[in-house]
Amino acid sequence: MSKVRVHNLFISLDGFSAGTYVTADEPIGDARALFGRFDGRVINGVHHVAEPITADRIFASAWGQGIGAEIMGRRKFGPQSGPWDDDDWRGWWGDAPPFRTPVVVLTHYERAPLAFDNGTVFHFLDADPATALAFARELADGGDIRLGGGPSTVRQFLAADLVDFLHLVTVPVVLGEGTSIWPGTAGLADGFDIETLTTGSGLTHQFWNRRR
Amino acid sequence: MSKVRVHNLFISLDGFSAGTYVTADEPIGDARALFGRFDGRVINGVHHVAEPITADRIFASAWGQGIGAEIMGRRKFGPQSGPWDDDDWRGWWGDAPPFRTPVVVLTHYERAPLAFDNGTVFHFLDADPATALAFARELADGGDIRLGGGPSTVRQFLAADLVDFLHLVTVPVVLGEGTSIWPGTAGLADGFDIETLTTGSGLTHQFWNRRR
Repeated sequence: MSKVRVHNLFISLDGFSAGTYVTADEPIGDARALFGRFDGRVINGVHHVAEPITADRIFASAWGQGIGAEIMGRRKFGPQSGPWDDDDWRGWWGDAPPFRTPVVVLTHYERAPLAFDNGTVFHFLDADPATALAFARELADGGDIRLGGGPSTVRQFLAADLVDFLHLVTVPVVLGEGTSIWPGTAGLADGFDIETLTTGSGLTHQFWNRRR
Repeated sequence: MSKVRVHNLFISLDGFSAGTYVTADEPIGDARALFGRFDGRVINGVHHVAEPITADRIFASAWGQGIGAEIMGRRKFGPQSGPWDDDDWRGWWGDAPPFRTPVVVLTHYERAPLAFDNGTVFHFLDADPATALAFARELADGGDIRLGGGPSTVRQFLAADLVDFLHLVTVPVVLGEGTSIWPGTAGLADGFDIETLTTGSGLTHQFWNRRR
């Protein structure tokens, strides 16, 4: 069975992985401080190793390996909420979204799929995590499923015990408020083997692998 | 300009990266102890992340990213020396060598190229490091050049100051004898920024990036 993997999930010392708002001008809202030490959120380059080749960048570049489809929350796809009032919105990423696979966007407001020349196809689905995962596996051609965030989406899959691998990046910053993956997940770590490393940039990386 | 990169170069505490002999039955000769803590020398899987997903495996999997061609010494291609007495020898790797790019094999005894269905093509070249590198760059279509070893080959390129990136993996083992990349390279480290990390397996990884 293909795995459900979370990569490059940045988290503050007080446990937040996103701010309290997102706008078209500020895709990461008031959580910019999370990305001051490393540009992990910059998607360009994850298919290749950027220069210089640091441990942080090698870890970030595991993002795409063996992935057959992504699942993301609607807020990662765009700043809108409610019924789609802008059918011209094609995501944050221009003409070449970095995914290069099918992407399932979870939304209560379904719309027609959006296909790009580089293999990225956004499918819009109103479904619970298990149903969305089954749909993504059909699209993934045997590859793993990357759970792409945001943190609210990751939290729902964690609470449903559907995550096999989690790459957390703890950033030495305090946000004070924001969105967290942790509510409702107490005891979750007991089911995983966890490896922890620190890098010269001051980041702490954790690799959670579900115990067999 | 594309980079010359060395990945997954294992080294003992006393500085050896290979044993003193290689045979058809023992491709890593008497240096097996180098690979007891991690199967980094097992090439299968480097295009995908193996399970469980550990820091060691993520580091190993950077091997293929952005690579357009490899250069290797003849001893990595096979156990023979001198004139080719076995034209049927097609390398250690069966019908699907893991390289999937052109590979320049350095040898004093040139022979016709060997092509495989998965994109791997071995070219046999009698040339000094700078000439071999120019030839590999022509084949690499803009990608980086991976210097694939063995250690004697890496040493020659280091001595010629042709290496831009070096991923060293120090293994807590003493070999006593073997082949080293270090002779003739004193002072080399001064030209690189070096990041060092240890992993839970007991390995120490170093990432050397040539200083700009």
